[in-house]
Amino acid sequence: MNYQKILEEIKEEVKPLFGKGKVADYIPALARVGSNHFAMSLQLFDGRVYGVGEVDCRFSVQSISKIFTYAMVLSAYGKELFKRMNHEPSGNPFNSLVQLEYENGIPRNPFINAGAIVVTDILESIYTGEAFSKILEFIKEVSDNSKIDYDKEVAISESRSGFRNIALINMMKSYKNISNDTKDVMGIYFKQCSISMSTKELSRAVLFLANHGVDPITKKRFLSESQAKRLNSLMLTCGHYDASGDFAFRVGLPGKSGVGGGIVALVPELMSVCVWSPELNSKGNSLVGTKALELFTTKTGLSIF
Amino acid sequence: MNYQKILEEIKEEVKPLFGKGKVADYIPALARVGSNHFAMSLQLFDGRVYGVGEVDCRFSVQSISKIFTYAMVLSAYGKELFKRMNHEPSGNPFNSLVQLEYENGIPRNPFINAGAIVVTDILESIYTGEAFSKILEFIKEVSDNSKIDYDKEVAISESRSGFRNIALINMMKSYKNISNDTKDVMGIYFKQCSISMSTKELSRAVLFLANHGVDPITKKRFLSESQAKRLNSLMLTCGHYDASGDFAFRVGLPGKSGVGGGIVALVPELMSVCVWSPELNSKGNSLVGTKALELFTTKTGLSIF
Amino acid sequence: MNYQKILEEIKEEVKPLFGKGKVADYIPALARVGSNHFAMSLQLFDGRVYGVGEVDCRFSVQSISKIFTYAMVLSAYGKELFKRMNHEPSGNPFNSLVQLEYENGIPRNPFINAGAIVVTDILESIYTGEAFSKILEFIKEVSDNSKIDYDKEVAISESRSGFRNIALINMMKSYKNISNDTKDVMGIYFKQCSISMSTKELSRAVLFLANHGVDPITKKRFLSESQAKRLNSLMLTCGHYDASGDFAFRVGLPGKSGVGGGIVALVPELMSVCVWSPELNSKGNSLVGTKALELFTTKTGLSIF
Amino acid sequence: MNYQKILEEIKEEVKPLFGKGKVADYIPALARVGSNHFAMSLQLFDGRVYGVGEVDCRFSVQSISKIFTYAMVLSAYGKELFKRMNHEPSGNPFNSLVQLEYENGIPRNPFINAGAIVVTDILESIYTGEAFSKILEFIKEVSDNSKIDYDKEVAISESRSGFRNIALINMMKSYKNISNDTKDVMGIYFKQCSISMSTKELSRAVLFLANHGVDPITKKRFLSESQAKRLNSLMLTCGHYDASGDFAFRVGLPGKSGVGGGIVALVPELMSVCVWSPELNSKGNSLVGTKALELFTTKTGLSIF
Repeated sequence: MNYQKILEEIKEEVKPLFGKGKVADYIPALARVGSNHFAMSLQLFDGRVYGVGEVDCRFSVQSISKIFTYAMVLSAYGKELFKRMNHEPSGNPFNSLVQLEYENGIPRNPFINAGAIVVTDILESIYTGEAFSKILEFIKEVSDNSKIDYDKEVAISESRSGFRNIALINMMKSYKNISNDTKDVMGIYFKQCSISMSTKELSRAVLFLANHGVDPITKKRFLSESQAKRLNSLMLTCGHYDASGDFAFRVGLPGKSGVGGGIVALVPELMSVCVWSPELNSKGNSLVGTKALELFTTKTGLSIF
Repeated sequence: MNYQKILEEIKEEVKPLFGKGKVADYIPALARVGSNHFAMSLQLFDGRVYGVGEVDCRFSVQSISKIFTYAMVLSAYGKELFKRMNHEPSGNPFNSLVQLEYENGIPRNPFINAGAIVVTDILESIYTGEAFSKILEFIKEVSDNSKIDYDKEVAISESRSGFRNIALINMMKSYKNISNDTKDVMGIYFKQCSISMSTKELSRAVLFLANHGVDPITKKRFLSESQAKRLNSLMLTCGHYDASGDFAFRVGLPGKSGVGGGIVALVPELMSVCVWSPELNSKGNSLVGTKALELFTTKTGLSIF
Repeated sequence: MNYQKILEEIKEEVKPLFGKGKVADYIPALARVGSNHFAMSLQLFDGRVYGVGEVDCRFSVQSISKIFTYAMVLSAYGKELFKRMNHEPSGNPFNSLVQLEYENGIPRNPFINAGAIVVTDILESIYTGEAFSKILEFIKEVSDNSKIDYDKEVAISESRSGFRNIALINMMKSYKNISNDTKDVMGIYFKQCSISMSTKELSRAVLFLANHGVDPITKKRFLSESQAKRLNSLMLTCGHYDASGDFAFRVGLPGKSGVGGGIVALVPELMSVCVWSPELNSKGNSLVGTKALELFTTKTGLSIF
Repeated sequence: MNYQKILEEIKEEVKPLFGKGKVADYIPALARVGSNHFAMSLQLFDGRVYGVGEVDCRFSVQSISKIFTYAMVLSAYGKELFKRMNHEPSGNPFNSLVQLEYENGIPRNPFINAGAIVVTDILESIYTGEAFSKILEFIKEVSDNSKIDYDKEVAISESRSGFRNIALINMMKSYKNISNDTKDVMGIYFKQCSISMSTKELSRAVLFLANHGVDPITKKRFLSESQAKRLNSLMLTCGHYDASGDFAFRVGLPGKSGVGGGIVALVPELMSVCVWSPELNSKGNSLVGTKALELFTTKTGLSIF
């Protein structure tokens, strides 16, 4: 298949959609990013990469970081994990606090904010005081790229306006589902959300997930086959908040989006994909990015269904 | 792969689980079914079938009927469908009425009761007075089997105790999301839930869904490729009520369960599977059946992830 | 105090508010009532009555009927009552179905629709087949007026559009909190809501509640002192749906409103009051009527606080 | 009426109830208080006081402080208040966070924690940096007693375990319904909850509320007549969390309880009452105290209904 040609077509076909979404503006550091960016990268198992647009331009990965931290606890923490969070779609526009309260401080899944905060708390319990450097190290390793870093300005901006996330962690602390100091955990969490990566880097970083837990290029194993399968199924059922069903319906690939406008997706046993475009739809997922991935599976027939 | 041997192994390995679930007892006609039944059938594209246990014993398909009625409206009703229901996981143990109220009578997806009732209402609008006979006809056709029928006793039993379903339809009627007389629609709905089929018949009936909408044996097309893909993704994200995420996590195949104890699952481009065992887990899905399917994907490696 | 003069003043002062509310239009029979009506009646213990406006014009009492049916079960049914409903304000704009589901079919209080339907079910259990004629008889007796009747057209209209109420009763039936046939109970309920009375008649009918359960004119006792006190406290905390706190805050008297535009209120040990004006505010209570009662307590200083 | 004799009778009659409730144990400083305490004080307008039990023993006033802070903003802050909170009963066992989220950060009423925190925030806006000393000053003034103080140990204990309250304030901050720094506001809030007073002191402190806003002994006016009426109605509809309706039903007086085991109640135009007993019922109100007040209105006939 001529992937480069397909990417070029997609880039043309999504053009009319620019201006129809809205760049995340809850923090100034994100709002400042212009709205017209677009990049899409494919990474194959044999090392070949394809791309269109600003494939080297870094953006804030935001919630995409949740797949890396979850991968870290999956391999390090074992069964305890299942006592501290569920693995069901949240399916509720009011998910965050309402469900937490009904379900006694147990988050619905590790990809909503509450769940990802518990994951960060677990990492802090494992790597006391060094959780963030371990997160960064893990991402560098799966990316085979030592230059990845976070954006301090975004991290500070997040911590200054993250009242709802602070509400979430205190709520869970009241249910004894947070072990560490809430401020420490939030400090790590805001940093992990602020990691900056390009579509080329991100598609490289998630390649091991498309290959049963093993980086097909470096041959390093990061997850067992069973763990990788579980992470993929979570991305499919819970990767896009309240629009996860719609994404599965339209795109048909495991994926994870972030409010920075990035989306990663996996074609199991074949490749990983990353698209970036900062304007979001009403559910908080990249509007152009979602369409680009839908066009990709339509043109290639590479849906898992 | 030696499918027959794998099925035999599964049958042995699930034995210790009998007695750990609970047969549905909300209607006498279901409660009367003994608890120790087990059957599992595979249906391949080339016509080969494999099976263990009571593969010819018919049971009440219950919610599995929802995939057939939804397939009928998908091809007949087009875009109107998306105004009358969403396609997101419900993720709420209290889903039924709570979400309906918050979301103004629009069901979360076509596989929860509220959504399936809207689907039945649409069929009644299309086939005035003949909706149920059309449903039965469709199931006979996809099954390539003219002997399928419903169990009148179960249907009457359902209609006598279906107060919550009657609450649901009246709620939706108050939001003007039901077009026909509520009693007529419920009559059809209770009948469709009462259709009786064996695992061999059910695995045959869903085969077209594993093959992009075309029955690989008769070559008849029932859905377009895109429609089949959408139905599969819905089965994965919403097929098991509040345990859909767990099923995707553990089994990794599109599937649909019913309180009669049946579960169908699809291996895209390869085969369809059906398992039956009446004891349910706390989420209302067959306890032994779920385990059997988990063993099946573990042993065969046939997860979609 | 010159009550007649105060009533005349109130009538003048509320004039600018006409046209700011909205007549209930969920059934044609109510929508047809013009919007500019106004009537206000006082009934003293010594038999004196005061009034302004159309004090003899009958209107649909709707939810005001709930105080009469609750009075009937309070005296006839005893402690069983407290197992079948609570006595707390519902405080929830989505009260009806959401709370019923969270609280397993137990209504919040007897003045929301679900609770009043349980009350009607209890009456049907006591007076098999004759519940409605007993209700009418009771209202005639407390009113000392044999001419009170219900409006058949309104009752039919209610039953044709009462889908949400039918949802409520089926929901409660599924939790086994309804003993009789749902259609029978709803038939009675729709009739009791359709009873027609004037402000003069209604103020007379609730006089016993202002006098510890005894009609101060006929000297008949309808409730014990303790029962009357309880009914009064319920009217204060739950008498106006989601605006009960606001009514207590602004008016400071036990009261009960109906969507027909009527409101009754009690000045304990002194008098009863009834006001009618069909335009409703956003919470479903008479807009002009609420203001008239607020002016009444401000001018007379007769708040209970 | 022989009030002293009535109090002695009540003290005897509640004895069998000791041991049936549970002392608040969410902070060590409260858990340490023994469970068998009992005190009840009456304060009349002419200065006479009656009492039984440990009427001079101070305890933590906790939520009873909410009536004093609300009285302060009522007179100082005017209409702005009504934009920042509602005045309806919350009626929801899950009230705190669920309702806040559905209602966009606007608390249901000033007597649930979220509402009281907004009140404290308003006080901090008015008296920058001096809010707590102003609160203490106000309580000293209405008590006519300069020796009232807070318990530092309790305040520190509260701040160390108040995760749910911190969740509430951050949630409201995310909806922009908190103007000041969340830590500053919580510091004041935890201190106000830790104020220690005896039943004799508390009954004296709320006397002005029973007399239309004027202390009948010192003749000082603290609230306008209309403001006092509103505060009283709020105490009746919202003074006891999810058991407010039950308290109105059983006791029939405006009141406010705290988890320290205290309850104040008002007999308008006659007296104020305070009872203390640390064991709480399942709704978080003093079990013995509620019964004592019920006996009080039964014996004296002093319900407002």
